[in-house]
Amino acid sequence: MSDRLRLGVMVSGSGTNLQSIIDACEAGRTGACVAVVTSNRASAFGLERARKHGIPTVHIPVGQTGSPEWEAADARQVEVLQAHGVQLVCLAGYMRKIGPRLLDAFPGAIMNIHPALLPAFPGVEVQWTAADYGVRIAGCTVHFADEEFDRGPIIIQAAVPVMPGDTGDELAHRILQQEHRIYPQAIKWFAEGRLSISGRQVLVKEAPPPLIDGTAIISPGLDP
Amino acid sequence: MSDRLRLGVMVSGSGTNLQSIIDACEAGRTGACVAVVTSNRASAFGLERARKHGIPTVHIPVGQTGSPEWEAADARQVEVLQAHGVQLVCLAGYMRKIGPRLLDAFPGAIMNIHPALLPAFPGVEVQWTAADYGVRIAGCTVHFADEEFDRGPIIIQAAVPVMPGDTGDELAHRILQQEHRIYPQAIKWFAEGRLSISGRQVLVKEAPPPLIDGTAIISPGLDP
Repeated sequence: MSDRLRLGVMVSGSGTNLQSIIDACEAGRTGACVAVVTSNRASAFGLERARKHGIPTVHIPVGQTGSPEWEAADARQVEVLQAHGVQLVCLAGYMRKIGPRLLDAFPGAIMNIHPALLPAFPGVEVQWTAADYGVRIAGCTVHFADEEFDRGPIIIQAAVPVMPGDTGDELAHRILQQEHRIYPQAIKWFAEGRLSISGRQVLVKEAPPPLIDGTAIISPGLDP
Repeated sequence: MSDRLRLGVMVSGSGTNLQSIIDACEAGRTGACVAVVTSNRASAFGLERARKHGIPTVHIPVGQTGSPEWEAADARQVEVLQAHGVQLVCLAGYMRKIGPRLLDAFPGAIMNIHPALLPAFPGVEVQWTAADYGVRIAGCTVHFADEEFDRGPIIIQAAVPVMPGDTGDELAHRILQQEHRIYPQAIKWFAEGRLSISGRQVLVKEAPPPLIDGTAIISPGLDP
């Protein structure tokens, strides 16, 4: 068994963030490896991506939030992640509310990525909401998950300009490019033991200075 | 009478944004001039700043929002601004709700500046709220005002990184530096007839591309 941090990634959809995590892990850029990928949807393309890389996948159907099925799925999720020796859970386009068992089993060790500069635009399809709102600057956020959607302490954010006439799709694409930069970085910091949480503040040990690079502001910056 | 756009600036406090507007106007960088400054507070330092530049000032006391005094102040505000030939009203740290008469008298011609990346952190003292929330990226917004605080269509925004250990004061200062860049720019665009509003979208004619300059992302960018 490698001494790399073992990730469990939870997806609901196409899994482009999962792919960026897999790629970063395989390139040795995170100090982590993906031990298992789970999805509430059997047809999620993220599961197919995982299989292509020889990563175990598990479909865990989830009933209505709060229902007995949902509670059972919460327990099953913990079982599966622990069976694969997972040390950090990464929500990557996982569209369902996570349960108390999962939160209890991985305290301070569940991350989420959200395609907006939280606390602006929590929820779903927010890139389109942001475009409709007429914001000039959009972005994405990696944060520790808690029992509420899109609320936990923020690890890293990236901001991008909105271009004149941007459609939601175009804005979503511009944001996604930055998601693929910041999620592997947050995972690497966790793997290296550089993250600590104090209230809502996340301290990044030896945090690189904010990066302002022509396409985005990323804060804290990215490791060299 | 000059052919420069005549501004009426409304302040409640120290008026640093007013100062940046005055300075930009005097330097010929806006195509506008400050015709009058009003304040709900007689002791607002913004009034003193105006007097130093020979700009007429008017103290308009405002009662409780929605009260007869407040309605009278709303009417008085319009009277004063019109008496000075004002064409664009600039709220600059004006902490009271503006009334329907003012909105009716200056349709699409009232701007506000807010020290956050709206729609995140509406309200007051939001730089401190943002620091406490643990955001990694903060900023400011110039928008057209409507009958709700901090809600109208966005003209320009600037984003800045939050530095590790930033106090609210330090963050407020970093944001303020960008406020002083974007408010005069928005005024200049208005003076040049380059702004049009369509729903929540503000179209800037010949908008400069987003500026990413080492301290901030500003979108749209600043005129050369």
